[in-house]
Amino acid sequence: MSDIYQDSLLLHKKYGGKLSIKSKVSLSDKKDLSLAYTPGVAEVCRVIAGDQEQAYPLTLKGNTVAVVTDGSAILGLGNLGAKAAIPVMEGKCILFKEFADVDAIPICLDTQDTEEIIKTIKYLAPSFGGINLEDISAPRCFEIENRLKQDLDIPVMHDDQHGTAVVVLAGLINALKLRDLEKSEARVVVNGAGAAGTAIIKLLLQYGLKDIITIDRTGIIYEGRHGLTLEKSNLAKLTNHKQKRGGLTEAIDHADVFIGVSQPAILTPEMIKTMNDQPIIFALANPVPEIMPDLAKEAGAFIIATGRSDYPNQINNVLAFPGIFRGALNNRVKQITDKMLIKTAEIIASLVENPNHELILPNPFDKKIAPAIARAIN
Amino acid sequence: MSDIYQDSLLLHKKYGGKLSIKSKVSLSDKKDLSLAYTPGVAEVCRVIAGDQEQAYPLTLKGNTVAVVTDGSAILGLGNLGAKAAIPVMEGKCILFKEFADVDAIPICLDTQDTEEIIKTIKYLAPSFGGINLEDISAPRCFEIENRLKQDLDIPVMHDDQHGTAVVVLAGLINALKLRDLEKSEARVVVNGAGAAGTAIIKLLLQYGLKDIITIDRTGIIYEGRHGLTLEKSNLAKLTNHKQKRGGLTEAIDHADVFIGVSQPAILTPEMIKTMNDQPIIFALANPVPEIMPDLAKEAGAFIIATGRSDYPNQINNVLAFPGIFRGALNNRVKQITDKMLIKTAEIIASLVENPNHELILPNPFDKKIAPAIARAIN
Repeated sequence: MSDIYQDSLLLHKKYGGKLSIKSKVSLSDKKDLSLAYTPGVAEVCRVIAGDQEQAYPLTLKGNTVAVVTDGSAILGLGNLGAKAAIPVMEGKCILFKEFADVDAIPICLDTQDTEEIIKTIKYLAPSFGGINLEDISAPRCFEIENRLKQDLDIPVMHDDQHGTAVVVLAGLINALKLRDLEKSEARVVVNGAGAAGTAIIKLLLQYGLKDIITIDRTGIIYEGRHGLTLEKSNLAKLTNHKQKRGGLTEAIDHADVFIGVSQPAILTPEMIKTMNDQPIIFALANPVPEIMPDLAKEAGAFIIATGRSDYPNQINNVLAFPGIFRGALNNRVKQITDKMLIKTAEIIASLVENPNHELILPNPFDKKIAPAIARAIN
Repeated sequence: MSDIYQDSLLLHKKYGGKLSIKSKVSLSDKKDLSLAYTPGVAEVCRVIAGDQEQAYPLTLKGNTVAVVTDGSAILGLGNLGAKAAIPVMEGKCILFKEFADVDAIPICLDTQDTEEIIKTIKYLAPSFGGINLEDISAPRCFEIENRLKQDLDIPVMHDDQHGTAVVVLAGLINALKLRDLEKSEARVVVNGAGAAGTAIIKLLLQYGLKDIITIDRTGIIYEGRHGLTLEKSNLAKLTNHKQKRGGLTEAIDHADVFIGVSQPAILTPEMIKTMNDQPIIFALANPVPEIMPDLAKEAGAFIIATGRSDYPNQINNVLAFPGIFRGALNNRVKQITDKMLIKTAEIIASLVENPNHELILPNPFDKKIAPAIARAIN
């Protein structure tokens, strides 16, 4: 791993970051200038002033997404602030380009005040066709996304929530198929009730799962637990219908599926042994998962997925977000709905021709993925 | 002209705007992803978190400028709002790339409140190495630029002010040389006291001109004139030492230089005839100048410059801003000073090998310009 870190540093230094601008039009003589810039461009301005929708076909707006963060929850590194977030946002932007030909621009905000973030993104919106929120800590991320979805006329998605939820659901669709388990029967434990955990639970419920128990640092979440945030008390209503109490040990007993978006090494082999036969383990803490794949397998795990690229079954958001925004731009959708997210998960799952316990998700470099998703976002 | 307008519209429609994103690094396999994105990128984040200056060599910040507007003064079109401004900002961004390999990103703000604009730009600053303000109306543009220069640690320049002033000064240096007139002796009338006029006057004074009269819509500006804005009462102190009163007719009598940044066709042949011998006319209103070149020449003008590309002596900001920001980024200057702007004007003027009355400025496509300016911005 330390080699990857040093190599990454060298790569960034060599190129001075990763993203550059390119002109789509020629600028080699006065005629070119007069068309791309003054005086010709005045006509384009006038047309848009007369009909604001014309900004889509006539400017970068039609193909451009802002990738916005406040640097409060960078990868697994925590709150390192705006500048330290640039390399991640820049990386995300070039993935958008590579995987779906979306032009994406990194915006790293020097404020962590919820209201200021909301206002700033609204002010920024005119030249963008969509907003991808990234690495903003919970619970502020919920308020920020919800408010922007209400107030803006372009699609807004917090990828740490919904991108992750979509890929988890895609993997789970194939995992349940391999286990021959009905979605309404599956007993699921989600360890972690932050941005990703909350979105995963909501999407699984929308998809038709019924039996989910959520755990945060305090333990199992249940209705009436003291000091729940608004978002968690909402989760308490939607999950844990048997009103279980306790911690991970109590929750996981006789569960079929463990989904961890929490801390390294929190899941033990002993816990896996108390699960139902052929347990499904999604251990997504990064870079060190809730249990290492080998250890989970030894303890009887049937399917094990992680966030890592060096093991089978990587839960990788790049399977989802490029295609989702590609479709949102192509079809000019104003909102990315849960229905679209579920369709996306189903499409991703369906792109694995013959799923097996080490192959529940497609190869992210499969060029069919983004176009297939894009067609479904409408 | 109507052909240029229609052709420009077609060009914008054909390409869907003019600007796209490009990755500088390869993203063709898992290894590439692990270096450009997770997990490798985490190390780059950590390094920047430990030393914020490392954002320059390790991210796009080192080569990227935001081109920011509120759409309040788009070209000569007026206040058309944020979306109608996109084509101009996008055009400016590709000029930055073409003429100086600066990566520039258009930001069109959906607010025209001075304080909100200042705050928003401060929030946006972390991922940018400089801020180019554009098409923001006077007098708000003065406050916005001044405050941002105070508060940000990256260079900020309102190009409508200073880019224009630099190119006017460059042209004037050669024009005065051709007239064999000392700068301290030249009698100058500046018609228009908005963003460009104000910056031109200040830069000419810094350069060493002494005798300038300014005119706004009300007439000649003089100390104690009723209802002057803060900026104009400052101009009143700096100019018109003879306390002249009246309008353009009174001001231009026995002047050597007319600089118009005002309205079409406001300068008459009769007025030119009252000027000193071999008058220098910069008629910069766009697209219709204060006087048409042929008419000015008939009335005795020695040198006539306009903003138009279809006549000799085009005052074109593209001669200045790409090189200025190239230098600011290369040499990581925190402020663009008047001294740098004057040096820039002198360099531009010096790049015309044998100036004559139809050649006071270099060809903007001369590849030597931006590098020569860049070396002087330090």
